[in-house]
Amino acid sequence: MKIHVVKIGGNLINDKKFLDSSLEAFCQIKGNKVLIHGGGIKANIVSDKMGITKKFIQGRRITDKKTLDVVVMTYAGLINKNIVAKLQSYNCNALGLCGADGNCMKSYLRLKKTKTDIDYGYVGDLTNQSINISLIKLMMENHIVPVLCPITHNGKGDLFNTNADTIAAYIAISLKKHYGEVELHFCFEKKGVLRNVHDSESYYTKIDFRLFQKIKKNHSISNGMVPKLENAFFALNNGVSKVSIGLPYYLIDDINNKTILCL
Amino acid sequence: MKIHVVKIGGNLINDKKFLDSSLEAFCQIKGNKVLIHGGGIKANIVSDKMGITKKFIQGRRITDKKTLDVVVMTYAGLINKNIVAKLQSYNCNALGLCGADGNCMKSYLRLKKTKTDIDYGYVGDLTNQSINISLIKLMMENHIVPVLCPITHNGKGDLFNTNADTIAAYIAISLKKHYGEVELHFCFEKKGVLRNVHDSESYYTKIDFRLFQKIKKNHSISNGMVPKLENAFFALNNGVSKVSIGLPYYLIDDINNKTILCL
Repeated sequence: MKIHVVKIGGNLINDKKFLDSSLEAFCQIKGNKVLIHGGGIKANIVSDKMGITKKFIQGRRITDKKTLDVVVMTYAGLINKNIVAKLQSYNCNALGLCGADGNCMKSYLRLKKTKTDIDYGYVGDLTNQSINISLIKLMMENHIVPVLCPITHNGKGDLFNTNADTIAAYIAISLKKHYGEVELHFCFEKKGVLRNVHDSESYYTKIDFRLFQKIKKNHSISNGMVPKLENAFFALNNGVSKVSIGLPYYLIDDINNKTILCL
Repeated sequence: MKIHVVKIGGNLINDKKFLDSSLEAFCQIKGNKVLIHGGGIKANIVSDKMGITKKFIQGRRITDKKTLDVVVMTYAGLINKNIVAKLQSYNCNALGLCGADGNCMKSYLRLKKTKTDIDYGYVGDLTNQSINISLIKLMMENHIVPVLCPITHNGKGDLFNTNADTIAAYIAISLKKHYGEVELHFCFEKKGVLRNVHDSESYYTKIDFRLFQKIKKNHSISNGMVPKLENAFFALNNGVSKVSIGLPYYLIDDINNKTILCL
């Protein structure tokens, strides 16, 4: 039985209409499915309103204690619960989870390996043992659709901020081990991975690992896209059948535009 | 099989040490249990930081759209997930839910019955059909402990603010219909219902319905305590075996001080 793991992020989260139509598309996927959402810029908006200074080192966001509270509130609260309520209104029996819920995603604090490494703060990294697949299985067997937010825990009472694309990859890989076929879809506001960020039609229809290495070296794709593609290839290398990136509408219309990743 | 429904609220939520020791006490309860938490003053703190003006009419809080977002963030996000993470660290397999999750608590918007009634805003009221007991049952059968926050949904995509004591009473009543015996515990920072709010030792050991009517009429108990007691008697009138109010420590030591309610 094929399982669909769908990650939605970027501007899909920020724009209510865009989000609603993405969720509608998600609901139309038949069979078992899992949704993972990012945070978009909502955490920034809340941070700004609360007067919390955002910290960046070398362009990377640092999750200090105050920022952690904001992302927990925004991801696990505001965004997750509004998505779940909307899915319920579409007759999709969604249930929102952060990593602490039912111990479904356990992480460990990202440690500095050397003195010069960046200290990212309350950021949790996953391992092959992170995903409690028995909970996801139990939910699927009972026709409950898991909706995961990018907050994990360490089992010692601490919550951490974790990259949503990475969670999606690990969930897909874990499901693959227990089910036959898993497809992973990274959905955002563009038709795929763009050759030229200023041209929304310039998407690749296919990227294999060799091409990825090339365009990464050339810096001909946006910096933000690199970790997403790394997660995509990580999933493919670990048995996930199909990984694609694009607008959420391709979920219901396979002819629709998207970038397909392949090894 | 006896089931314990525990509500924690008031200053238990605001003070980290107090909260942790309350959760430790909760973990020591044997058998099936459900935790419901309130919001304490945390939502007020977040509102203030975000510069959202709190609205009150005749002393009652009004949940406008901005306030709703804050309570969703604070109750379903910050408080719920930190409680779940802490319970997990105590080896209690907790899973946090708002009413939209698995459609577990459905409410309807509180409507003005007459023109002079207060418009409370995004406040959801429960009915006898509100609780989806099959989800709670599924969780219990799988040794998962539900942790409910006071956010409900209407099934049409909207989230509402709902009184946590009322949720606790409805959960206890719904469980009673499916299981033999249910006990409901309202835990807060005092030893029980006080005769004199300035004397923490002046708690009633027992309040029956007649006494409640009398002290309500006399205004000899605090205004905030009246709806709590009304929820308590509502539960007793609907088959809940035992309802008590007090410090969370009585959960593990039955001799401990508390107020027992009886019909």
